[in-house]
Amino acid sequence: MELFPIAHIHTPFPEKFGVPRQSGIAPALRAKIVFLPPYGEAQAFRGIEGFSHLWLIWGFSKIPQGKWSPTVRPPRLGGNQRVGVFASRSPFRPNPLGLSSVTLEGLEETSQGTVLVVGGADLVDGTPIYDIKPYLPQADSHPQAAAGFAGQVPWQELEVDFPAPLLAKVPEAAREALLAVLAADPRPPYHKDSRRVYGMGFQGMEIKFCVTAGVLQVRAVEGQEE
Amino acid sequence: MELFPIAHIHTPFPEKFGVPRQSGIAPALRAKIVFLPPYGEAQAFRGIEGFSHLWLIWGFSKIPQGKWSPTVRPPRLGGNQRVGVFASRSPFRPNPLGLSSVTLEGLEETSQGTVLVVGGADLVDGTPIYDIKPYLPQADSHPQAAAGFAGQVPWQELEVDFPAPLLAKVPEAAREALLAVLAADPRPPYHKDSRRVYGMGFQGMEIKFCVTAGVLQVRAVEGQEE
Repeated sequence: MELFPIAHIHTPFPEKFGVPRQSGIAPALRAKIVFLPPYGEAQAFRGIEGFSHLWLIWGFSKIPQGKWSPTVRPPRLGGNQRVGVFASRSPFRPNPLGLSSVTLEGLEETSQGTVLVVGGADLVDGTPIYDIKPYLPQADSHPQAAAGFAGQVPWQELEVDFPAPLLAKVPEAAREALLAVLAADPRPPYHKDSRRVYGMGFQGMEIKFCVTAGVLQVRAVEGQEE
Repeated sequence: MELFPIAHIHTPFPEKFGVPRQSGIAPALRAKIVFLPPYGEAQAFRGIEGFSHLWLIWGFSKIPQGKWSPTVRPPRLGGNQRVGVFASRSPFRPNPLGLSSVTLEGLEETSQGTVLVVGGADLVDGTPIYDIKPYLPQADSHPQAAAGFAGQVPWQELEVDFPAPLLAKVPEAAREALLAVLAADPRPPYHKDSRRVYGMGFQGMEIKFCVTAGVLQVRAVEGQEE
């Protein structure tokens, strides 16, 4: 089957670095889904405003297709234990499809068609979207589901030290989302070097930080390098 | 992006008629997912047994691709009200992908590789599977999600009158699932003719029934026509 992008999503993340590990980790994150013609016509969204959550099926577009492995090392296990690819959400899968639930925050009618505003997306800017479905709690919600290894290891949140003069450089509407992204620890799991300065692209800015003993300290907020 | 089937699912339904409208409606339904080489190798499933639920991303293989419409008439609205395709789970979508959560009931190691036994699937026999992911309740479960039109109209369950001599023709292990499928009303929503005799293929049998005033009466259980 050949899939065609129906839309692209616009998120604050120019690169994979910093993108939350799962949807919903930073609910204040806003993203816009812009449709390709003819998929953006208003009637294709009739009734969608009654749903609070949507499914996105999307492509891990930065992963070369065919580059999959039967086992992967999930970040949640510290990056040094292997599990089967079908027991993981790893992007290195036979068909590199991603699945994310997001909140529906609004619809905008533009000259290019409908734009969906969504919350909590864990996608890189520009990711192609192949399908959008309404979330049906009676079929999709299983709060008691057993989550295997992912349920056994709590994710270690970081304390965020974001000096006020630096935070002032971040547009106010983006602060809550940025703080949540940083608290979720954007570092790859095998990077635990406290001297290292990381740079994370976020909404046209470059956020520079170090992590020492569970505290993420922001060192600089710069205009993003092109 | 081109998708390749990684597996096919084997379910009791040779045709779309009778397939539950959503996953989980008949939890006793069992299906087997048989993988194509090389995807069935045991290590690709390492750790999967710790998850109680899985996602299947699959293809509406009976729907010609490209046959989509901006609006659709969902069965839940009686088949006579239109909503946008992105506000529905209709198969007539730009990329005809299906999404279903199923329960993981077991793994079998066979000479052809791993076979997954799953419960509650709403798929036609032979449907191609493109991806299998673990269900992560912390990211995927939203019990309070608003379900739009799908939350406003309760589905009308049927009372099932399955005479004992006919039920005796159904293998015991399949009875619970079959009764649940019939109670969920397998008829298309625009068929409300009480004189009509329907025939539903189920696990090599043909189940014949009528529906009058909320009661589904089984008339015959026959060997399936080839």
